[in-house]
Amino acid sequence: MKSHHLLPNFRIAVVGSGAVGCYYGGKLAQFGREVHFLMRSDLEHVRKRGLKILSKQGDVHLQKVNAHATTEAIGPVDLVLIALKSTANEALLSLIPPLMKADGSTMLMTLQNGLGNEEFLAEHFGAENILGGLCFVCLNRTEPGVIHHIGHGKIEMGEFSGLPLPRTWEIQTEFKRCGVVCSVMPDLGLARWRKLVWNVPFNGLSIAAGGIDVGRILAHDDLLYLTRALMDEIIGMARKLGHEISPSFADKNIENTKAMGAYRPSSLIDFLEGREVEVEAIWGEPLRRGFNAGAEVGRLEMLYHLIRHLIETR
Amino acid sequence: MKSHHLLPNFRIAVVGSGAVGCYYGGKLAQFGREVHFLMRSDLEHVRKRGLKILSKQGDVHLQKVNAHATTEAIGPVDLVLIALKSTANEALLSLIPPLMKADGSTMLMTLQNGLGNEEFLAEHFGAENILGGLCFVCLNRTEPGVIHHIGHGKIEMGEFSGLPLPRTWEIQTEFKRCGVVCSVMPDLGLARWRKLVWNVPFNGLSIAAGGIDVGRILAHDDLLYLTRALMDEIIGMARKLGHEISPSFADKNIENTKAMGAYRPSSLIDFLEGREVEVEAIWGEPLRRGFNAGAEVGRLEMLYHLIRHLIETR
Repeated sequence: MKSHHLLPNFRIAVVGSGAVGCYYGGKLAQFGREVHFLMRSDLEHVRKRGLKILSKQGDVHLQKVNAHATTEAIGPVDLVLIALKSTANEALLSLIPPLMKADGSTMLMTLQNGLGNEEFLAEHFGAENILGGLCFVCLNRTEPGVIHHIGHGKIEMGEFSGLPLPRTWEIQTEFKRCGVVCSVMPDLGLARWRKLVWNVPFNGLSIAAGGIDVGRILAHDDLLYLTRALMDEIIGMARKLGHEISPSFADKNIENTKAMGAYRPSSLIDFLEGREVEVEAIWGEPLRRGFNAGAEVGRLEMLYHLIRHLIETR
Repeated sequence: MKSHHLLPNFRIAVVGSGAVGCYYGGKLAQFGREVHFLMRSDLEHVRKRGLKILSKQGDVHLQKVNAHATTEAIGPVDLVLIALKSTANEALLSLIPPLMKADGSTMLMTLQNGLGNEEFLAEHFGAENILGGLCFVCLNRTEPGVIHHIGHGKIEMGEFSGLPLPRTWEIQTEFKRCGVVCSVMPDLGLARWRKLVWNVPFNGLSIAAGGIDVGRILAHDDLLYLTRALMDEIIGMARKLGHEISPSFADKNIENTKAMGAYRPSSLIDFLEGREVEVEAIWGEPLRRGFNAGAEVGRLEMLYHLIRHLIETR
């Protein structure tokens, strides 16, 4: 494997320039990294007026942004940050190849939600250079080229194939230099299941219980009970799959969520605004893996199918 | 135990004169039995204009009906048919005593839905004279004193304390003589769980999936899948409690439901019209019993708590 020297001339592509792609790509660009954004709807706007990140930590206005309409126009890069919605993964089959260097050293890091994205990339582009980054961040794209950073921002990153490599630490260092709180995870699979402990109940119940924010989930005894029961079920599924998560992690998650007030999970916003919801990555794939491992999956099964029905009939 | 001679001078009281009470009480009255109805809202109307049962099997107009405002006005009877909504069971504590004969021979037959009603009666009035009747009937009370009989009508009746007694067969005979299809069940508990195999998913999903009829539940793959999964879970819970139900019974239930078209379960109508829903009898009590027996209950748990939430916030 070629060793990676992130600087100089390290080129980064961001595929999927929604809130997550623009925020992290924007941070890297802000600190002088060469970042190229693949853009669709916001392309002309960003080319003319740049990219704005509005945050309590200080607003940033990137006036000159490398915004492109195709990945051919970007050409080969060292690192691809994939922030496309997971429901659009098929599009990566044509978007990624122009970004790959001939020597096979291009790293693909998915910043997407849920389970199955690393596997999809590995299947089509080889497992060796796949990384995953779990984003713990509250963002909103309010208008073209404008991202509201509402809170948090940490990335937990790890190697799909196993333990961290030197390159994993190097990428972490680069992100840190650009102001992104970042940690390297020895077990990416475990990290993904830990994130599901929050995402499955809160994203799920916010839709299934009639379109409500996390504050209202916590305020209603029946939904709080289901939140905890779903968390326990996810922890049981993870355990069957070899990922040990302490039950106290569920308590901590609920405790932390109390500070989030009337936060609306991204899936709920997608649902309410008629956009695609990442149903398979967040609920479907965990359900299938847990079921195949012989875990109890009844609560997740109900949630998954109810959400699918609600989306189909919204 | 005193033996019961249903005729002559056999007095019947109907407590809870909604659709079910008026229909079965009305059939018995139509064929000359002495039936006394406890009525609230419909009292004056029925006293003046009688009771109408509109049915494809022939309309019936009972011009003179024994309608009463209190059970004191009815006095002691031989058989009480309880068709009150189970959510109002506490009211029975004062309604029943005036109907009890001094010799302790008054039989109480609950025609209510779900689990826990016989137990409630047994706890307060002694287990010996409690019977249960499961009503398989589609009724609608469209206006005061008018019951639409839409279809079916069978009652499965049994003894709370165990095997059928001579009185059980006598009551069955009386109902049959009055045109009610009726069978005596050797195991009332099993019969109740068999009924839940239908009620839990169809009443439940009709509410939880956004207020839809059984036809729309069957038409949507995700809901059909959940229907079957919930049925299997109920069958598993019943098995843990000693009631053996064949999985093919679930298939048969689904098949039969296809003939019901756009039927709206009674719980859905209650939900949509802002009335009390029998949440504990249909979902809560089965959940608690299954959980205590160590059965898998995740799907029912989700359904129960989601319904409670939806009712609270409707």
